[in-house]
Amino acid sequence: MKIIVDAMGGDRFPDEIVKGVADASLAGTSRFALVGDTELLKKSLEGLKHDPSAIEIVGAECAVTMEDDPMSILGSKRNSSMSVGLKMLKTDGDAFVSAGNTGALFTGASTIIRNVPGVKRAAIATLIPFERPILLLDSGANVNVLPEYFIDWAHLGSLYSEFVLGAGNPAVGLLNNGAESHKGGAMLAGTYALLEKEEGINFVGNVESYDLPGAPCDVLLTDGFTGNVTLKLIEGLSVYFFRTMKHLMTETVFTKVFSAPLSGKIKSMKRVFDPTEYGGAPILGLRKPVIKAHGHSDARAITAAIRQAEAFVMADVTGMVIKWAAKGETASES
Amino acid sequence: MKIIVDAMGGDRFPDEIVKGVADASLAGTSRFALVGDTELLKKSLEGLKHDPSAIEIVGAECAVTMEDDPMSILGSKRNSSMSVGLKMLKTDGDAFVSAGNTGALFTGASTIIRNVPGVKRAAIATLIPFERPILLLDSGANVNVLPEYFIDWAHLGSLYSEFVLGAGNPAVGLLNNGAESHKGGAMLAGTYALLEKEEGINFVGNVESYDLPGAPCDVLLTDGFTGNVTLKLIEGLSVYFFRTMKHLMTETVFTKVFSAPLSGKIKSMKRVFDPTEYGGAPILGLRKPVIKAHGHSDARAITAAIRQAEAFVMADVTGMVIKWAAKGETASES
Repeated sequence: MKIIVDAMGGDRFPDEIVKGVADASLAGTSRFALVGDTELLKKSLEGLKHDPSAIEIVGAECAVTMEDDPMSILGSKRNSSMSVGLKMLKTDGDAFVSAGNTGALFTGASTIIRNVPGVKRAAIATLIPFERPILLLDSGANVNVLPEYFIDWAHLGSLYSEFVLGAGNPAVGLLNNGAESHKGGAMLAGTYALLEKEEGINFVGNVESYDLPGAPCDVLLTDGFTGNVTLKLIEGLSVYFFRTMKHLMTETVFTKVFSAPLSGKIKSMKRVFDPTEYGGAPILGLRKPVIKAHGHSDARAITAAIRQAEAFVMADVTGMVIKWAAKGETASES
Repeated sequence: MKIIVDAMGGDRFPDEIVKGVADASLAGTSRFALVGDTELLKKSLEGLKHDPSAIEIVGAECAVTMEDDPMSILGSKRNSSMSVGLKMLKTDGDAFVSAGNTGALFTGASTIIRNVPGVKRAAIATLIPFERPILLLDSGANVNVLPEYFIDWAHLGSLYSEFVLGAGNPAVGLLNNGAESHKGGAMLAGTYALLEKEEGINFVGNVESYDLPGAPCDVLLTDGFTGNVTLKLIEGLSVYFFRTMKHLMTETVFTKVFSAPLSGKIKSMKRVFDPTEYGGAPILGLRKPVIKAHGHSDARAITAAIRQAEAFVMADVTGMVIKWAAKGETASES
């Protein structure tokens, strides 16, 4: 398969992105298009162990920065690596990976790749790595929502959770401020009522944020604002906890010596909360797979995002979404 | 001063509530009305060290449970300890403390005590105990909000933060999904614009949830839904982190022995995140002080909530709110 990678996105472009692709090329499973500043990418690739026959460099005039307005991808940045990559995906390629500006990527993907007919809004799905991992969607793209969007997302999330992440009969929860069905105001109460009677969805009811670390669900639905606040709070608190722990453990020579055997264990616990470990967040509902890699992605994170893109393509989740949405379209026409 | 305490609220009523009041009575600073089942309360008080001259028991027929509908306080539970206590506060008493059903307490307080004229919506304010503590409001009462409510809350939170918590020129932030002023949809962008030009408010802009543990603000504004999700997520993640740490530390005899010197330190870190340590959450904007103690409150937490009620009364925050709101009323009439 062919995976297109935006080489100019994230905090560590282009070197870490190029290295991630170089490493991935050695597996021999995919071909890659690296999109960005040709000279810069050639130089970055030099000296890296890679399969030259599997990597093609595609030039792009400029790059979307983290500060750029999301709409710039359709205007002043229409010749950026992100935009060129998305246009390439439309005609040639199986998936697109970018660690760049989330808003621009979502806007570009929704406009250039477009939604599967019948899907009202695409959504960004992020895996939260608790013991029972939770796929949270929407995790940042749609601030204004309607109950119908949640129904689409329940199906999109369930398909991805089952066929890419391997959850059997995925349980779907609704993030809310209480367990009762009327909670959260008219929009969420209306969503609850629709989810309860939606066929093909294993709806397990409202989930409160207190219970997130042990929540009995595989897919958790929320609006993009709450999703963003939730994910960034988990990230920020993790950093805070581990920093405080480290401080406690190295405060004196005494605690330093005694806590040494623990530090390896804490490192492995920390890894569970490191978003760059988990590849990227798929944008679900599009006509072709697009993966948002974390902005801080290093080479290993890019390789992980590429693996995720491969799994996304292999499972043909997009094909299943098209089939599911077509049924809905036919039903609503009849 | 006289503090009225709902003896029938929370998970540990009446014994822990009664013990908290008994302990507080020994300080000699306040008198108390303990509202609830007279026989039960008399029995619970027996054998506890307390100042009998400082505690009066007030009978109430029933209690609001955690499962009761918030509106029940005005209907089937209108003779509950919570309702009787609030009615008593209206005519006689300086503050009311309850660990009971948050929704019922907010509904009862808004209806029986009522808002200060000019305050559009009262709000629950919860202190998050980071190194620089953050007063988060609204933390659960108002799911549907308007930009004007946030302006009121900015003033209420600033007064409480300065005169009860001791922050100098409190910095006010707006919880949002990005730093830029246009973020978060029309409602939050509109709020940002109002806050920026509001006189007497030290507005420091949007705050992202990732930055909460080190956020440069003393007061953080949000709607009641996001506030609830944020607070309960912090609580749930803390429990999860400390449980995992404990597990790592006691996994083998080896780690057990070596981590023993650390466990005291971790306990003190844990205390920072124990909401029962921090007394209660004041409901701001009412004509008299009402404090919501945490539902899991033990005696120590009740005593802490009583101390907070005393500080709230002593600082005369309510008087300051009345003065501030009267200015606004006059201004809008002229």
